[in-house]
Amino acid sequence: MTRSINRDTQLCMSLSGRPGNFGTRFQNFLYEALDLNFVYKAFTTRDLPAAIGGIRALGIRGCAVSMPFKEACLPLVDAIDDSAQAIASINTIVNDDGVLHAYNTDYIAIRKLIEQHGLSPDLPLALRGSGGMAKAVACAFRDAGFRHGQIVARNEAAGRKLAEVSGFSWARDMSGVQAQLLINVTPLGMEGAEADQLAFERIEVEHAHVVFDVVALPPETPLIKLARALHKPVITGAEVIVLQAVEQFVLYTGVRPDDALVAKAAAHALGQAA
Amino acid sequence: MTRSINRDTQLCMSLSGRPGNFGTRFQNFLYEALDLNFVYKAFTTRDLPAAIGGIRALGIRGCAVSMPFKEACLPLVDAIDDSAQAIASINTIVNDDGVLHAYNTDYIAIRKLIEQHGLSPDLPLALRGSGGMAKAVACAFRDAGFRHGQIVARNEAAGRKLAEVSGFSWARDMSGVQAQLLINVTPLGMEGAEADQLAFERIEVEHAHVVFDVVALPPETPLIKLARALHKPVITGAEVIVLQAVEQFVLYTGVRPDDALVAKAAAHALGQAA
Repeated sequence: MTRSINRDTQLCMSLSGRPGNFGTRFQNFLYEALDLNFVYKAFTTRDLPAAIGGIRALGIRGCAVSMPFKEACLPLVDAIDDSAQAIASINTIVNDDGVLHAYNTDYIAIRKLIEQHGLSPDLPLALRGSGGMAKAVACAFRDAGFRHGQIVARNEAAGRKLAEVSGFSWARDMSGVQAQLLINVTPLGMEGAEADQLAFERIEVEHAHVVFDVVALPPETPLIKLARALHKPVITGAEVIVLQAVEQFVLYTGVRPDDALVAKAAAHALGQAA
Repeated sequence: MTRSINRDTQLCMSLSGRPGNFGTRFQNFLYEALDLNFVYKAFTTRDLPAAIGGIRALGIRGCAVSMPFKEACLPLVDAIDDSAQAIASINTIVNDDGVLHAYNTDYIAIRKLIEQHGLSPDLPLALRGSGGMAKAVACAFRDAGFRHGQIVARNEAAGRKLAEVSGFSWARDMSGVQAQLLINVTPLGMEGAEADQLAFERIEVEHAHVVFDVVALPPETPLIKLARALHKPVITGAEVIVLQAVEQFVLYTGVRPDDALVAKAAAHALGQAA
């Protein structure tokens, strides 16, 4: 109940160009379930330095950072964790008594998922995309020991840059690419204009050993549906968004919720996100 | 429910040296009762300009300002309403799309109470106190046409200054003061160390026509109890704190709650404030 908020309640928040509801619903669900005196709210801003200054001055406990602020935040924080340093991109700020520590829980989540799903670094990969999230994903695979594969991106400059950073090679399209691990980090298949799009061809999925789609909404994208139909192991974007949000929750509160509770919070948040 | 907060929820807040619970409980109660998509939380700060900058940058809808920030805020806002201009003191900031408008709802509330209680400006008054709230009260009486009376304050410099600003005269103590309207704006009678203190002597209360105690916690101070026992009309600090909070609520939301609902919110908030 908002009426139970009192002077000791801690605020956590998000900053993004277009605020969604996932983080708000996920974090507030867990605060209530675990009876933690926290409240979470989404914000946007036209003045990032003043917004970050406000987080510090008001003692706001934590802040999730999304597009287009992930790199612009770097000079505004006080300490940068390895997870954010690895990709020069921030998605989480934790305020310890005025000292702002920056993390990237997307990177942390991808690293955990690679481990949880037992993905072998010998698998040659094809990663479609070249934006901020593609950097987090590519660098997580690089740091997990993956050495063989292509960054597949029509934007040659961005694709080549990400390939260079992550140690993979660049390809304009999938022709000639032989990959056993397919990774989609484009909006193809996401709710909206490209909802019907398949990020990889059927034949590519047939040849793959594992399919990983970072698109979280809907959790069952056309690519994931096809991979399941072909009995391929999958990693979904819902796993990524939930796991990175759990890591944020732990950083803010110091409490790690158990898997059953996380599943409930995820169902609550994904049921009405976007 | 905090879990019903979404991306469209508006945040209102307070800034004070020592946050209390009254505003949080009062405003959140009304948001829920009226099904308004708002949430309210108290903050303090060690960096007022950055805090106010954060309000602007994050689009925080409104902010109650308490000690010790009421005057320091003046150069940080964009427009100052007559209520705050009259006493060079702010207790409320409203953020209209990045433009910060400042008000003083204490002043507004005192003006309304003078009118509601039908106090005649011919009554000679004695006002004890010389702090920020004493200024709001003295100037409200000045602007309601009161011309006769004393600012009673042991602190001569502060007392003389307030007397000069408000057009009354200064007196170190009540000896020789003949007042029909007694006004307490000191902490005498407030919860804590001075809870048993009577702000005016019994004989002074006996001679008074009206007694006004700005102390809100407890609502029934020793002075109010004595005045009631002597069948004197009273104005309580609870009336002030509730009415000024209603004016804040109206400024933030554009909605004026009815008297019955205000009474419920006040009972809820005063029952566990401080």
